[in-house]
Amino acid sequence: MPRCGLTVDSLNPKVLALADHLGDDAIARRAQCIQNEIETKPGSHPFDEIIYCSLSNPQSMGQQPNKFFREVLALCNYPHLLEQSETNSLFSSDAIARAREILDLFPGRATGGYSHCQGIEGLRDIIAAGIASRDNFPCNAEDIFLTDGAAPPVHMMMHLLIRDQKDGILCPIPSHSLYTSYMVLQGATLVPYYLDESRGWGVSMSDLKKQLDGARSMGVVVRGLVVINPGNPTGHVLVEENQREIVDFCRNEDLVLLADEVYQENIYTDEKKFHSFKKIARSMGYGEGDISLVSFHSVSNGYYGECGRRGGYMEVTGFNSEVKKQVYKVASLSSCSNISGQILMSLVMNPPRVGDESYTAYQAERDSILSSFARCAEAMVCTFNRLEGVTCSKAEGAMFVFPSVRLPKKAIAAAEESNTQPDAFYALRLLETTGIVVVPGSVFGQIHGTWHFRCTVLPQEEKLPLIISRFMAFHEVFMEEFRD
Amino acid sequence: MPRCGLTVDSLNPKVLALADHLGDDAIARRAQCIQNEIETKPGSHPFDEIIYCSLSNPQSMGQQPNKFFREVLALCNYPHLLEQSETNSLFSSDAIARAREILDLFPGRATGGYSHCQGIEGLRDIIAAGIASRDNFPCNAEDIFLTDGAAPPVHMMMHLLIRDQKDGILCPIPSHSLYTSYMVLQGATLVPYYLDESRGWGVSMSDLKKQLDGARSMGVVVRGLVVINPGNPTGHVLVEENQREIVDFCRNEDLVLLADEVYQENIYTDEKKFHSFKKIARSMGYGEGDISLVSFHSVSNGYYGECGRRGGYMEVTGFNSEVKKQVYKVASLSSCSNISGQILMSLVMNPPRVGDESYTAYQAERDSILSSFARCAEAMVCTFNRLEGVTCSKAEGAMFVFPSVRLPKKAIAAAEESNTQPDAFYALRLLETTGIVVVPGSVFGQIHGTWHFRCTVLPQEEKLPLIISRFMAFHEVFMEEFRD
Repeated sequence: MPRCGLTVDSLNPKVLALADHLGDDAIARRAQCIQNEIETKPGSHPFDEIIYCSLSNPQSMGQQPNKFFREVLALCNYPHLLEQSETNSLFSSDAIARAREILDLFPGRATGGYSHCQGIEGLRDIIAAGIASRDNFPCNAEDIFLTDGAAPPVHMMMHLLIRDQKDGILCPIPSHSLYTSYMVLQGATLVPYYLDESRGWGVSMSDLKKQLDGARSMGVVVRGLVVINPGNPTGHVLVEENQREIVDFCRNEDLVLLADEVYQENIYTDEKKFHSFKKIARSMGYGEGDISLVSFHSVSNGYYGECGRRGGYMEVTGFNSEVKKQVYKVASLSSCSNISGQILMSLVMNPPRVGDESYTAYQAERDSILSSFARCAEAMVCTFNRLEGVTCSKAEGAMFVFPSVRLPKKAIAAAEESNTQPDAFYALRLLETTGIVVVPGSVFGQIHGTWHFRCTVLPQEEKLPLIISRFMAFHEVFMEEFRD
Repeated sequence: MPRCGLTVDSLNPKVLALADHLGDDAIARRAQCIQNEIETKPGSHPFDEIIYCSLSNPQSMGQQPNKFFREVLALCNYPHLLEQSETNSLFSSDAIARAREILDLFPGRATGGYSHCQGIEGLRDIIAAGIASRDNFPCNAEDIFLTDGAAPPVHMMMHLLIRDQKDGILCPIPSHSLYTSYMVLQGATLVPYYLDESRGWGVSMSDLKKQLDGARSMGVVVRGLVVINPGNPTGHVLVEENQREIVDFCRNEDLVLLADEVYQENIYTDEKKFHSFKKIARSMGYGEGDISLVSFHSVSNGYYGECGRRGGYMEVTGFNSEVKKQVYKVASLSSCSNISGQILMSLVMNPPRVGDESYTAYQAERDSILSSFARCAEAMVCTFNRLEGVTCSKAEGAMFVFPSVRLPKKAIAAAEESNTQPDAFYALRLLETTGIVVVPGSVFGQIHGTWHFRCTVLPQEEKLPLIISRFMAFHEVFMEEFRD
């Protein structure tokens, strides 16, 4: 019998519809390829290293892991160390104490078993206490689901809310691909709303209302609204008034507010503070019965950048008990999230305190990283705003700047000729000329006819002058070449 | 404006259709409740502890983690230790050497970054070498996807293969709920095939063919076949001839063979050996172009039972490059699996070797655990076969025995009266009378009119006499009470 085998056209069309940049980013592949060429044939390119300004992956850029976090993880992985006298000289005293406290939270001190599917109860208590102290409003450990980073809980919520393609979710444009990808995978209708670049990428309530009404008039049942604060890729931090408007909007329109708050610790301007949407809702007097709200956080996106540990949580409030039972059911499919990630999430929400041996070093490290981000952001914004045709909003949080580039018609034509998006064409030219990798705005979505790129503020500061001078030189030559 | 909020009937019906035992197992909840009562009111029950024979979670049953594994994890979490002289007295020399080797596999030795979405390349090389050495056939690291346990890759494959409810997957009955749950969640048609209890739970090729033809005649497009070997819940290990028949069946019928091989290291009879389906297929002369095969493994299910670490892999062979690209795309949605799990998976596939400091202890621990499983299984099988109306196949692998109980009509009627499945009724009575927790066969599926329960072989051996005597006494009284 002849075997035809598994063919791509017999696969789930929702998988096929996922944007190719997820698995097949031409720029990332080209960067990898150039890197290999530089290593094997030094001098083959006009630069001697690839500088990744594309990755929100601080430790891959040379940032060192936080000492206290790693001490506690090591001790929890190998508790035998806690009984050895040498340990006192190898580890800080508060890391030792913390590891003991954490081990006591595990039934039978067994860190090798599956946990409760929401995560170890005692760790959720610590996280809930951290959230309560952050917000000055109570938090219930039963509302916390510990997760392997932020992707699985987003996937869970899409599974829960999306029945078929008539169901839609309001999603910001631009936004990183996590939400849009899972919407595509679940067959949801993406209802885009456009962040207002003219107001530093805030949420325009009139556009939100317009998009919601438009979708509804097309028969779309809009189930929820995604907000990313601080913003990815925009670096914007919402003002409180804007957050209150969003809360009222979700309440009035009966939408689940899906709040991506993974960059909550990365604010590097004195003018803004992070306020969780739950804090905002509670401070408006809204309780459990008034608004359905999911807050996502992870250990990947804070300044400590423990991306590889895959820790995270979602806090689910304003869901009735029947609905909550269904969330629990979906969460239980994968047994539980990884224990190291669970422990790390508890450390993030309860870092060393005043008086602890690690406190001073921990604070110094935090301040040093965030102030480096701030200086880098400022230098980049300043540089980009000096380039012909480029404007760049102030970066206030997260890890990014997201400048707009007015590309000449000739460049757009050249891009079309090479079957590339114009901003990808620009980014590829940048890579080939300078070794600098940025992410084209078309990956995140943008208003038709505008072009952007996302650049992280993570590069080591000593590389900044090089990045800036190369970028400026490249842009000048590019504009010269394609000037209309 | 009045707010109706999120209601359960507005959720995705595929989520609602997931069996409630996933998130709301009456027996597990009752056990938890009794445990609390025993602690707060000693003497409130006719036993003084709950004995979980329901959980495939060895470390929660008191099994200690493997020392070498945990040493390496601790060192990789806090590499600073490798530079300290005290480390040589605290850790075994091969753990230190292994940690150094592993750290060198991480670009920039950065264990805190996201990895390649398939996992760190060097770790995949080690795992591929381990698979090649296990099978005596080559294995390509590019075919390996490192995962957070076995659930995410099963979910991925369902996303990939299932377009709508016309697509079906052949799934063994009985089987643990992982496959059936993800089928329900993706809206696939479950095409059951019945394992042959009369032949110790082997696969009956005639039933397989009958079920496939039956499904096809109803218009179901059958995409794949799930085989669990060693079996969960059956404890059966397939004979090679049966495996060859299955391979030929999948090849002839153009089905993707989804091979759950997570219990590959848990064989505790001298008469059987584990053979991967890839080894069987290659030994039959079938290459990449002949059969599409996915093998799942994890760090949770081996005798070491590192369930909480959420490490795993799938090996994907016989998929053409276009299809493989789609697998990659789905895998990339969640960035990467957790690094500790990735490292642990590499240790499982490359444990201490002859001459290494940890080798003797590692082998002794392995043999001790597996021989304890074997003794426990034998005692249980022997006991169950002595009970009135109970027959129990030999347990050869995995962690389970799965006896059949012929329940009296009166017991079935009493179960119906209390709106419970008869085997759940039996299990609940067992719990209330003895404190022993088992999982009713109805959770796994079984031939209509037959009743079973799954019992793990994990209890600490000193508890076996107690378990056996309580079980025998309970069963006698139960049968007396409900005798027709």
